[in-house]
Amino acid sequence: MPRTKTRKPSELRPVNIEPFPSAAAGSVVITQGETRVLCTASLSTDVPKFLCDKVTGEPLRGWVTAEYSMLPGSTRDRKKRGPDSRGTEIQRLIGRVLRAAVDLEKMPGLVVTCDCDVLVADGGTRTASITGVYVALAQALAHARGAGLISRDPINGPVAAVSVGIIDGVAHLDLDYPLDSRADVDMNVAMNHKGEFIEIQGTGEGGTFSRDQLDELLALAGKGIRQLMKVQRQVTK
Amino acid sequence: MPRTKTRKPSELRPVNIEPFPSAAAGSVVITQGETRVLCTASLSTDVPKFLCDKVTGEPLRGWVTAEYSMLPGSTRDRKKRGPDSRGTEIQRLIGRVLRAAVDLEKMPGLVVTCDCDVLVADGGTRTASITGVYVALAQALAHARGAGLISRDPINGPVAAVSVGIIDGVAHLDLDYPLDSRADVDMNVAMNHKGEFIEIQGTGEGGTFSRDQLDELLALAGKGIRQLMKVQRQVTK
Amino acid sequence: MPRTKTRKPSELRPVNIEPFPSAAAGSVVITQGETRVLCTASLSTDVPKFLCDKVTGEPLRGWVTAEYSMLPGSTRDRKKRGPDSRGTEIQRLIGRVLRAAVDLEKMPGLVVTCDCDVLVADGGTRTASITGVYVALAQALAHARGAGLISRDPINGPVAAVSVGIIDGVAHLDLDYPLDSRADVDMNVAMNHKGEFIEIQGTGEGGTFSRDQLDELLALAGKGIRQLMKVQRQVTK
Amino acid sequence: MPRTKTRKPSELRPVNIEPFPSAAAGSVVITQGETRVLCTASLSTDVPKFLCDKVTGEPLRGWVTAEYSMLPGSTRDRKKRGPDSRGTEIQRLIGRVLRAAVDLEKMPGLVVTCDCDVLVADGGTRTASITGVYVALAQALAHARGAGLISRDPINGPVAAVSVGIIDGVAHLDLDYPLDSRADVDMNVAMNHKGEFIEIQGTGEGGTFSRDQLDELLALAGKGIRQLMKVQRQVTK
Amino acid sequence: MPRTKTRKPSELRPVNIEPFPSAAAGSVVITQGETRVLCTASLSTDVPKFLCDKVTGEPLRGWVTAEYSMLPGSTRDRKKRGPDSRGTEIQRLIGRVLRAAVDLEKMPGLVVTCDCDVLVADGGTRTASITGVYVALAQALAHARGAGLISRDPINGPVAAVSVGIIDGVAHLDLDYPLDSRADVDMNVAMNHKGEFIEIQGTGEGGTFSRDQLDELLALAGKGIRQLMKVQRQVTK
Amino acid sequence: MPRTKTRKPSELRPVNIEPFPSAAAGSVVITQGETRVLCTASLSTDVPKFLCDKVTGEPLRGWVTAEYSMLPGSTRDRKKRGPDSRGTEIQRLIGRVLRAAVDLEKMPGLVVTCDCDVLVADGGTRTASITGVYVALAQALAHARGAGLISRDPINGPVAAVSVGIIDGVAHLDLDYPLDSRADVDMNVAMNHKGEFIEIQGTGEGGTFSRDQLDELLALAGKGIRQLMKVQRQVTK
Repeated sequence: MPRTKTRKPSELRPVNIEPFPSAAAGSVVITQGETRVLCTASLSTDVPKFLCDKVTGEPLRGWVTAEYSMLPGSTRDRKKRGPDSRGTEIQRLIGRVLRAAVDLEKMPGLVVTCDCDVLVADGGTRTASITGVYVALAQALAHARGAGLISRDPINGPVAAVSVGIIDGVAHLDLDYPLDSRADVDMNVAMNHKGEFIEIQGTGEGGTFSRDQLDELLALAGKGIRQLMKVQRQVTK
Repeated sequence: MPRTKTRKPSELRPVNIEPFPSAAAGSVVITQGETRVLCTASLSTDVPKFLCDKVTGEPLRGWVTAEYSMLPGSTRDRKKRGPDSRGTEIQRLIGRVLRAAVDLEKMPGLVVTCDCDVLVADGGTRTASITGVYVALAQALAHARGAGLISRDPINGPVAAVSVGIIDGVAHLDLDYPLDSRADVDMNVAMNHKGEFIEIQGTGEGGTFSRDQLDELLALAGKGIRQLMKVQRQVTK
Repeated sequence: MPRTKTRKPSELRPVNIEPFPSAAAGSVVITQGETRVLCTASLSTDVPKFLCDKVTGEPLRGWVTAEYSMLPGSTRDRKKRGPDSRGTEIQRLIGRVLRAAVDLEKMPGLVVTCDCDVLVADGGTRTASITGVYVALAQALAHARGAGLISRDPINGPVAAVSVGIIDGVAHLDLDYPLDSRADVDMNVAMNHKGEFIEIQGTGEGGTFSRDQLDELLALAGKGIRQLMKVQRQVTK
Repeated sequence: MPRTKTRKPSELRPVNIEPFPSAAAGSVVITQGETRVLCTASLSTDVPKFLCDKVTGEPLRGWVTAEYSMLPGSTRDRKKRGPDSRGTEIQRLIGRVLRAAVDLEKMPGLVVTCDCDVLVADGGTRTASITGVYVALAQALAHARGAGLISRDPINGPVAAVSVGIIDGVAHLDLDYPLDSRADVDMNVAMNHKGEFIEIQGTGEGGTFSRDQLDELLALAGKGIRQLMKVQRQVTK
Repeated sequence: MPRTKTRKPSELRPVNIEPFPSAAAGSVVITQGETRVLCTASLSTDVPKFLCDKVTGEPLRGWVTAEYSMLPGSTRDRKKRGPDSRGTEIQRLIGRVLRAAVDLEKMPGLVVTCDCDVLVADGGTRTASITGVYVALAQALAHARGAGLISRDPINGPVAAVSVGIIDGVAHLDLDYPLDSRADVDMNVAMNHKGEFIEIQGTGEGGTFSRDQLDELLALAGKGIRQLMKVQRQVTK
Repeated sequence: MPRTKTRKPSELRPVNIEPFPSAAAGSVVITQGETRVLCTASLSTDVPKFLCDKVTGEPLRGWVTAEYSMLPGSTRDRKKRGPDSRGTEIQRLIGRVLRAAVDLEKMPGLVVTCDCDVLVADGGTRTASITGVYVALAQALAHARGAGLISRDPINGPVAAVSVGIIDGVAHLDLDYPLDSRADVDMNVAMNHKGEFIEIQGTGEGGTFSRDQLDELLALAGKGIRQLMKVQRQVTK
């Protein structure tokens, strides 16, 4: 399967986000190379107590949370169902990034649960999840506003994410699985539309990285994220 | 959402089975009305001990097993992840029906795990799962034969399933959710290509049913299953 | 152990239902051949929210639920404690059948939990459970009425169940374990006193069955269930 | 239910141990007053590694273990299924006492799992379990010897247990539930046939006890255990 | 590691209890020989329903509960995290003894959770836990009184515990691990400051014990506990 | 508790690492301000299969893994026992960083489990865990070499970590809890002795950060880590 043949190190894989008709308020499938993730955003007005005023019981804020899972058929060796520690780490990351995209005080009484279910895994599933599920979240919040559940638009602006890494000393954008398995350094970067960082997770398992390499990786990530946001805009418009 | 408007009680919903490119050896999406299920079949040669010769340790038979799950965004009220008793009952049913479709002695040393993940739930998910996942199973077994994992074709013939029920005294084929929630009797029927029964599960929660009604329901189911097998044949060819 | 020697294919095993003095409101032991099940029915007024009026909080209905378990010493190879998928499937079946025996609207504010604990397993434990636990349920509801917990009798009429199957082409009633393990088709049938079906579960794992065979099996089941209801009546009177 | 009317503080409740036909190698029901426990002992030759010679893999010893559970209908307020901390504590006690009754080196390669399932709970279930399950264990070991699984008799001698306690300053033997709930001190004593102690568990939750009271309680327990061993002997002969 | 060289059978190991600055209201580390346990007592006003008046909802009593755990590095073979049956038995023992030290009616609305985390395990961890955690409990209750959470002192008096056992026919006080693993009889004794018993747990796994031996063990335990209470008093003053 | 009064934004809290006598091969307590973590490293030669040669079964590599937990008394509101998602994320981070500190191929057949148990939590527990547990790991590997379990020194060089963050627009080093709860950006940085990055995790929950701020934070982290490595060197020498 010669997937990565002709792509340059600084090029994204082909990316596509399309609406997926489901029962959730927001729902898209993002395709990035072979990787494909179903992203849905479900609304609930069942607000946990810690978001409410202690005296009146009125909800003061809303909440956005995320769950991430790989379907059994998404990997060559069938992925067993059920929570695992890698998935836990990833869904915590997705949740933090999404909460940076919204102003929770502008959505009192509303809980949005964002689900990222990997249909096919070929590297970069956590960053593709972020890029895709932001669109589902935006759809769901628009729906909530239309239904009168909230009166203001809580979105601060779009967020998207991409992976970068160093393979044989060369910085690469948007690692697929064959690249990822050879990477000395692996970094996931989430940014907003102003080019500010929301989350950086860089790890040198099997290697370390210098300030210069970090600079190069972050520049590459910034370039990729700008392109991903163009794709997001095409769907949300 | 006026889904069930113009369909006659004896008509199937529009059905479509299409290949879905995943990492599993067999993989399709079945669409039946609004209901949509991703069905994958994964191969493994990790055969459990109870299928092996006690002396030589050689595998005597193969095994086919099934798992069923609903994605969180598949229902209006978000479905929580994780096993539940309804899903347990359904996946046992799917597994039994699939094992009737194959001769396990013709696939020694091979385990096929069939996964049915409901993308959208609008009634009849367990029977659509059976109809769809049979195709994925056939794809996977063909793949296994091509790869030399087995030398004979273990398939006895196709299997498919459909739901039938009684609403306001009238027998209906292929219940969607609005129909299902009004049904006095709900029956799931799985058959093979010879019109023989593999599994019948009829339940009169909130009602009972007579021999005459049973006869009518089974006739209706037989008719529906013959049509479903035509759709299956179009994909497997 | 030549258990099944002289019984004809159309004969029930010897059946006996006797009161068992326990702490539960209803309590019997049913013996069917070697199979023996302790059936108890416990009352509670702790009604779950979904059965109550959303405004007033008043209970609108009652609920009947069932649990099924096999004691460790009930099988030759000791049965491990704890829930398993077979037990889950069975207790869902038992619950559905019991709920068909009562009018839940006539028992607002009352929850009956019916427990079927298999003391000795020799085939047909799920159907013996249904036949026996209906009696325990009736005892418990009579007790509830006596104690003023409900004012009307919620029972629609008795329910009972029996297994039937095809062994070497011959239809058999009330399979014990040696028969069951040789059966090509295995069917569990629950009916009410009017001869109407409440639940049919027929499975052809290792075989399929035709309409004619289905007819023969259902007739046999009907005959067996009429006899079982006679035994039930002797206890409830 | 005036259970405790005419019994003197130094009297046992009526005790009965009778064989119960189950699938296990040993199986009795012990009745002590209203309390009733089904005790079974199942054989297995699946010996855990830590009992085997590290070089040859040959089993050096056998093992005896116990599980304790209360059936849902055994208590007025239905007992939920599944392990709880009280049951864990009790089954560890039962296991230790049973292992004192046998010489594990005389039963290499044999594991006996002893199950105590409380059918009706009216106080003293853990001690009745010990007294009853010893008989089931002895039956199972006799069976194992007959079947050639072991060549020697591993039994050191019988063990039995009883509860004692102080109510309103008076020492009582064999507390039923009404007594137990009023007791300031509650003690469970297990002894062998020579009158030696195997286990003493005395607890003064809601009270403390002096040396003199301890002496009185132990004397009372010794008397009760001698009587219980007479009942055991009647069954094992 | 010749730990037990010069100690006489009737001597305690060196004991030390010192305050440990943590976030809990009460917090000490007890060192007894090599054994070391961190004992903390945390306050909460989240009183469970069963301690409250059913009509007014006012808390009638308080509650004291205990948890016991061994840190992974506390044993030579790393102890796996998570609950196990031995720990369950031990924490139930600790909880019972602590509740005997207080008058729960004098602390309405207050829950104290006492945690015993074994830092180094060299025998006698459960009894050292009791001796140490009593001090943490006393600190926490003093803190609660100072903070106005309770108005009266609920402490009845100190409690402490020690292990005793018989090795090669000789009674020993305060068994370390090498002694414990050779003991024929092992007994844990908890007493109050008046020399009354709160809990006795004696077990003869691998042996039995006579009345005379019991007397000798209890006398030895009494002596050890008096010394332990001196150490407690030095800290609490 | 005015903890953070006089410290400058670019200053570390007082740090101390001292050996802690436990049963594990490596064992220290690190104190950083009020935060205190017990770090142990346990050896095992029970190597999982995936590290072994598939043909010969010989271990090809070793493994280093980490677990992180907070003791119940480590926080003001008692921390419930048991795994949670935050802990899962943290222990995966610790494990990755430790594996960057060693050459797993130089320790075939050896598994080191590193446990970080937080005794007192006042911010920065994950980075203090890394700094401390590296020392325990080094102790354990030295021990393994002394005991002949490995023949070469697998350590690449020390690793340490520190947290940095932005509060009111000012970059701060080594956040304690009061600072952390006010931080707009929170970053954890792990480096080796050459000043290369091993892991960067920066998150702007409640804020975002620019390239300039990132530069400032990384410089501050580098300075802090150099100081922490001095403290490490004092213990390891």
